[in-house]
Amino acid sequence: MTKYFRSNVDAMASYVPGEQPPRGTKIIKLNSNENPYPPSPAALEVLRNIDGEWLRRYPEPFGGEFRQAASKVLGVPSDWIIVGNGSDEILSIIIRACTEPGRKVVYPMPTYVLYRTLVEMQAADILEISYPEDYSLPLKELIAADGSVTFIASPNSPSGHVVPNEDLRKLASQLSGILVIDEAYVDFTESSALDLVHEYENVIIIRTLSKGYSLAGLRLGFGIANPKLLDGLFKVKDSYNIDAIACAVATAAITDQAYKNSCVAKIKASRNQLASDLKKLGFLVWDSQTNFLLVQPHQGNAEYLYQKLKEQKILIRYFKQPRLDDKLRITIGTDEQNQTLVEALTDLLATKHKG
Amino acid sequence: MTKYFRSNVDAMASYVPGEQPPRGTKIIKLNSNENPYPPSPAALEVLRNIDGEWLRRYPEPFGGEFRQAASKVLGVPSDWIIVGNGSDEILSIIIRACTEPGRKVVYPMPTYVLYRTLVEMQAADILEISYPEDYSLPLKELIAADGSVTFIASPNSPSGHVVPNEDLRKLASQLSGILVIDEAYVDFTESSALDLVHEYENVIIIRTLSKGYSLAGLRLGFGIANPKLLDGLFKVKDSYNIDAIACAVATAAITDQAYKNSCVAKIKASRNQLASDLKKLGFLVWDSQTNFLLVQPHQGNAEYLYQKLKEQKILIRYFKQPRLDDKLRITIGTDEQNQTLVEALTDLLATKHKG
Repeated sequence: MTKYFRSNVDAMASYVPGEQPPRGTKIIKLNSNENPYPPSPAALEVLRNIDGEWLRRYPEPFGGEFRQAASKVLGVPSDWIIVGNGSDEILSIIIRACTEPGRKVVYPMPTYVLYRTLVEMQAADILEISYPEDYSLPLKELIAADGSVTFIASPNSPSGHVVPNEDLRKLASQLSGILVIDEAYVDFTESSALDLVHEYENVIIIRTLSKGYSLAGLRLGFGIANPKLLDGLFKVKDSYNIDAIACAVATAAITDQAYKNSCVAKIKASRNQLASDLKKLGFLVWDSQTNFLLVQPHQGNAEYLYQKLKEQKILIRYFKQPRLDDKLRITIGTDEQNQTLVEALTDLLATKHKG
Repeated sequence: MTKYFRSNVDAMASYVPGEQPPRGTKIIKLNSNENPYPPSPAALEVLRNIDGEWLRRYPEPFGGEFRQAASKVLGVPSDWIIVGNGSDEILSIIIRACTEPGRKVVYPMPTYVLYRTLVEMQAADILEISYPEDYSLPLKELIAADGSVTFIASPNSPSGHVVPNEDLRKLASQLSGILVIDEAYVDFTESSALDLVHEYENVIIIRTLSKGYSLAGLRLGFGIANPKLLDGLFKVKDSYNIDAIACAVATAAITDQAYKNSCVAKIKASRNQLASDLKKLGFLVWDSQTNFLLVQPHQGNAEYLYQKLKEQKILIRYFKQPRLDDKLRITIGTDEQNQTLVEALTDLLATKHKG
C-alpha cells in the first residue's frame, strides 16, 4: 500500500493515543493533565440551552463570539485571535503554513511530544536542542539555529518550568522566523508572555481551554498574534473548524474568570501539598508552575511504580525516553485523589523495601 | 511579512467565507445546502444530558462510540471508519497524507470548490478536467491523468447529478492512486458507491452529518475505506480531532434513521414541487439527486435575481465563474420558504419585464 502515501507519512509510526479509559471506568486519572474539577456552571448552562437551529446551520467560520469574549478577558483586539479545534489544531496550522522540506523547526528538549509528530507529518527539518539540567533556555543555540518556526512551551511539559520573558524577548528579536510560545499551562503560573505579541510581529501565543477551564473534551484552543501573522494562518485553516456548541460553551467558560480562578487556586494549594508529601517519600520534586509535577523516585523505581499504580487503577505518566525514564509526571488531582496516590506509593515502597 | 510563510501560502488568496448571517437574523437562507428541519430529537436529548465529566476529560481519540453506531447503520466494520471534524477535515487529511509538490490531484469540473483550495495549501499539482454538457464522467481523461488523488463528488455540487457506479468501478480499477468518492449528498439519492470499498482498496467514501442529519453546526463527517488505507490517514489526523459532544450527539443522530428518512422524504417532495414551479417561470432546471437545484433563468438574469433576492433577505448561491455565471444554485427549504422564493422571483421577473 505504500504507493498511496507520501514517503514521510509511510515512514512515520502510527500514532499511539494516550490512555483514555472509557467513561464510567473507576479510575484515578492523573496522566494527561486534565483539571479535576468540572467546567464552569455558566458554561454547562449554555450547553443546556443550545437549540436545534444552532446545529442545523453552519457555524460562524472564525468563532466570532469566542473571539469577542477572549478579547475582553485578555485586553487584545478580537482580530488578533485565531480559534482552533484545540490548541493542537493551531500548532498544526502553523506547521502547515510555515514549513516544508528544507525549512527547519527548532525547539528545546524535553518538551511537548506533538511538536515532533507535526513536523514529521509535514516532512520539514527538525532540530532538537537539549535543555541544560537547570532548564535555563539554550538561547545561543536557538538563535544560531534560526528556525522557520521555533517552539517554546512555557510553562514547559514535563519539566513544569516557566521561561523568563527576558529570554523570550531576546529570542523573538533575533529570529527571522516565527516564535511560538505555547502557554497551554499559563493559568497555573503568575506570569505570561502575552505582551510580546505587541512588541514582535513574529510572536504567536498559544492558549487552550483544556487545562484551567476544564474543557479538554470540548476541543477549543486559540492563538494570539499580530493580524498580519494570523492572515497567513487563516489561509490554511478549515473553513468551519469550530463547531457551534464549542464556540458557545467556550465563550461562557472564558467569561467566567472567577470560577476558573477558584479552581486554579485549589489546584495550586493541592500541588504544594502533594509536592511536600512526595518529598517526604524521598522523591526529588521539580518546581512546577503547572497542574502537574515532575518527580524522581529512588533509582530504578519509576517504571515499577508506574506499572504497580496502574494495576491499582491509578494512572500517572511515564515517558520511556532518555532523561525522563527515571522520572514520573503526575497530574494534580483533588486532595482526595492525591491522598490515595500518596498512600498507594507509601505502601508500594514499603513492600518493595521488604521484598 | 512574506518570509514567514511557504511561498504557495503567500500566493493563495485569503479565504472568503460564505455568507453566514448571525443567529437570529430574519432571513431565508437557501445558499449553503443546509437542511431546513431541526436535527433528530434523540440527538438533542443526548445534548441535554451531557455532563461536565465528559467535557473535563480528553475525548476518545478515534470517536469510537460514533464508529460503532455508523458501523451498524452502514453494515461495515467499525475499523473501516475514520471520523473527522466535518467531512472537510477528512478531505484535508487525505490531501496531507497523499500529496505534495510533484504529486497530482485530479477532478472533473465544476465541483466542490474546496478541493482546489486544499491542493493549493499543500502545493501539490492540480489537473481539472471539464465535465461535458451532459455531465457524463470524462473517464478516459481521468484515467489517463492517473492522479495520486482523484476526487469525484457524487452526487455532485452544483450540478446535482450522480455518477454511475459502473463508471466509478472502471475508474477505481484503473487508477494507481486513491479515488475519493465524496457522498456528502448521498442521503438524497437512491444509490451509493459504498460497496466499492470492499472491491477496491484504493477507494474511500466520504460522508457527512451536515446535510441529511441537519448537523452542519456540529462538524461531524467520516470516511469509509479499507483499514490499510485508513492507517496512513490516521497518522496525519490531530490526536483528539472529535470533541466529546459532537461524538455523542452524532451517534444518536445516525442511529435515528427513521427521523432522517422522514426529513429526506419531505425535502425530496419539496424539491419536485420547487423544480416544477421554477420551470413554470421559464427556468431551465437540472435533474437533482440532492437537496438543491441548479437552475438557469433567462439570459442575463442570474446575477440580477441573486442580488435582488438578497435585498429581500432571501439568500441563494451565485457562482461568478465560467459555465456557472448564468445559473443559480438554490437549496431546498421548507415548502413555505420555497413558496416565498417563487413569489419573489415571479414579482422580480414581472417588474423587470415591465421596466
